Amino acid sequence: MEKSEVFEKGFELIGNSKIVFLATNDEKGYPIIKGMLNMENDGLKRIWFGTNASSKKVSRIERDQRACVYCVDEENFRGLTLVGDIGILKDPESKRRLWREGFERYYPLGAEDPDYCVLEFTAKKATMYHGLEELTLEL
Amino acid sequence: MEKSEVFEKGFELIGNSKIVFLATNDEKGYPIIKGMLNMENDGLKRIWFGTNASSKKVSRIERDQRACVYCVDEENFRGLTLVGDIGILKDPESKRRLWREGFERYYPLGAEDPDYCVLEFTAKKATMYHGLEELTLEL
Repeated sequence: MEKSEVFEKGFELIGNSKIVFLATNDEKGYPIIKGMLNMENDGLKRIWFGTNASSKKVSRIERDQRACVYCVDEENFRGLTLVGDIGILKDPESKRRLWREGFERYYPLGAEDPDYCVLEFTAKKATMYHGLEELTLEL
Repeated sequence: MEKSEVFEKGFELIGNSKIVFLATNDEKGYPIIKGMLNMENDGLKRIWFGTNASSKKVSRIERDQRACVYCVDEENFRGLTLVGDIGILKDPESKRRLWREGFERYYPLGAEDPDYCVLEFTAKKATMYHGLEELTLEL
């Protein structure tokens, strides 16, 4: 596998994923996976999610910023694992930028809703799996 | 959500998932997700996978047994997160039981191949997500 495949196919894979999988650590150090709506990304380096500030996931992230994002293309036997750190953004600009039509269902007060926040994941390394091959790159 | 939904729909969800997602911890405590072929399970309590004994995932599990298995039904907005411990089985009986046609491609020596091993995941708790609802049960 070439380095370019990690970037090009990885980028394509994120772009085509409606849902990606986010793992964070609970208070006992157990990894916890949850499916997340794939909202916005900057290449493989940064991924943003909108979520509930009151959720258990946000409490986990307040305690421990280590995280992983995974997406998969089952048909083509490709998977992408991104490992890095995740932070919580509550500034109005980030919240407005990630706001999507229909979110009123979840956050009745709109983009300013105090229960709405943004997660910013920053990848430190990327591993692309393709069939039996895999390649890890530092980002 | 009723308790029975966690068991019934959770069982259905695992049964319908060709791929499930397994998270383990790396040496720095970062969670690492990987898609795994869903091979065999005993309700929500136990899930078995066949994998390469020489893989990084097996090294991670030798160091740290804390793990999570996730599966998702995107169409029906359902997700199931199982949290528990994972172990490595190398006994001939377990390896033969999990052996599948076509595995020769990965393990040329067959079920006895020293690079083939079985992972046994034992869940301690299950969380079912359905739309905006969620319910966690101790198992």
